[in-house]
Amino acid sequence: MQIAILLFDRFTSLDAVGPYEILHRVPGAETVFVAEHAGPVHDESRALSLGAARTLSEVTAPDVLVVPGGPGQSAQMTNEPLLDWLRTVDAATTWTTSVCTGSLLLAAAGLLTGRRATSHWLALDTLRGYGAEPAGERVVTDGKYVTAAGVSAGIDMGLTLAGSLVDDRFAQSVQLMTEYDPQPPYDAGSPAKAPANLVEKARGRSRFTARQAR
Amino acid sequence: MQIAILLFDRFTSLDAVGPYEILHRVPGAETVFVAEHAGPVHDESRALSLGAARTLSEVTAPDVLVVPGGPGQSAQMTNEPLLDWLRTVDAATTWTTSVCTGSLLLAAAGLLTGRRATSHWLALDTLRGYGAEPAGERVVTDGKYVTAAGVSAGIDMGLTLAGSLVDDRFAQSVQLMTEYDPQPPYDAGSPAKAPANLVEKARGRSRFTARQAR
Repeated sequence: MQIAILLFDRFTSLDAVGPYEILHRVPGAETVFVAEHAGPVHDESRALSLGAARTLSEVTAPDVLVVPGGPGQSAQMTNEPLLDWLRTVDAATTWTTSVCTGSLLLAAAGLLTGRRATSHWLALDTLRGYGAEPAGERVVTDGKYVTAAGVSAGIDMGLTLAGSLVDDRFAQSVQLMTEYDPQPPYDAGSPAKAPANLVEKARGRSRFTARQAR
Repeated sequence: MQIAILLFDRFTSLDAVGPYEILHRVPGAETVFVAEHAGPVHDESRALSLGAARTLSEVTAPDVLVVPGGPGQSAQMTNEPLLDWLRTVDAATTWTTSVCTGSLLLAAAGLLTGRRATSHWLALDTLRGYGAEPAGERVVTDGKYVTAAGVSAGIDMGLTLAGSLVDDRFAQSVQLMTEYDPQPPYDAGSPAKAPANLVEKARGRSRFTARQAR
């Protein structure tokens, strides 16, 4: 089994590392980080780079594809070679997945048309503009397409996939070893729970404007 | 403000990236990944490397130190130059922190003697062997020392630190933007919650044996 995690300039690190930390533990699976060019790929803050071991042309038939999001996703929405790669690879996958605004890349490639999917809460309208049907759940499964909400939701998605790829007992053992017993010190992790003025401020600053929606 | 995150061969990626994803958003903070040698540092699975931008000698007085854990931590327990660096840097920090078995490195450097601290649940006895007083909480603060439980607990620690470094409102805004509203598909994230036979199996396979405890 091959699990491919896409990287691109200005991705969000936790989008990729959350599911990775769960999925690299799948017995017998090879996990590969893949990008247009092999070598370090800088994340959104430029303080961190993750190493891409393979180029797109070297990974053509993974069993599982994970597409992260991040500010750099916008530039990739019109990157035709990348969108072509997503379509090619998707034809071979058992599971095609995304975290955060990674779902916009899948949607731009035409892979989520008419499908229930999710994204970062600020990007749900844009996701609809690309033909998907936004759902408010943290992890949304529609056929072989599994999309997660913003950034940290990739950990929950990773465990869901671990259960599907192996079994519940394996997923539970990974949850135990990664001690994923979350106890956030605040309760502001969704627009329904956060203080209303923080939600409004975030909407005001959002890069997801009508310009990007089709 | 400088936030330094240590990397070493065979660290656990999420230990470092969890707090990073929260803390790099602190306004005005410079986040630096630091290791004995600059360049890519491979994590425990070898499938992922994170780039260290600076060497130990280039980072001498960070305001915040974050020490991850991982299987490679054992080899670092007797790395005297690294332990010396931890002691030197600690003299300058406002917060000295760890995730997972990173607390064993702080303890081996003598920084947690007599202090309440935590670690991965499998390493709590070893932590006691190095002079700390293990506490069962997910994030433990004793003076300027903040230690987190296993792997994923670094996200909770990051938010706690964000509240201390800036304020509650900022920490809540980061929680909202990272959509940290955890909904694990299983409830097996601690030895108290996981099926007993999985806990026993994990204990049986643990690298934390009497050999490593002093």
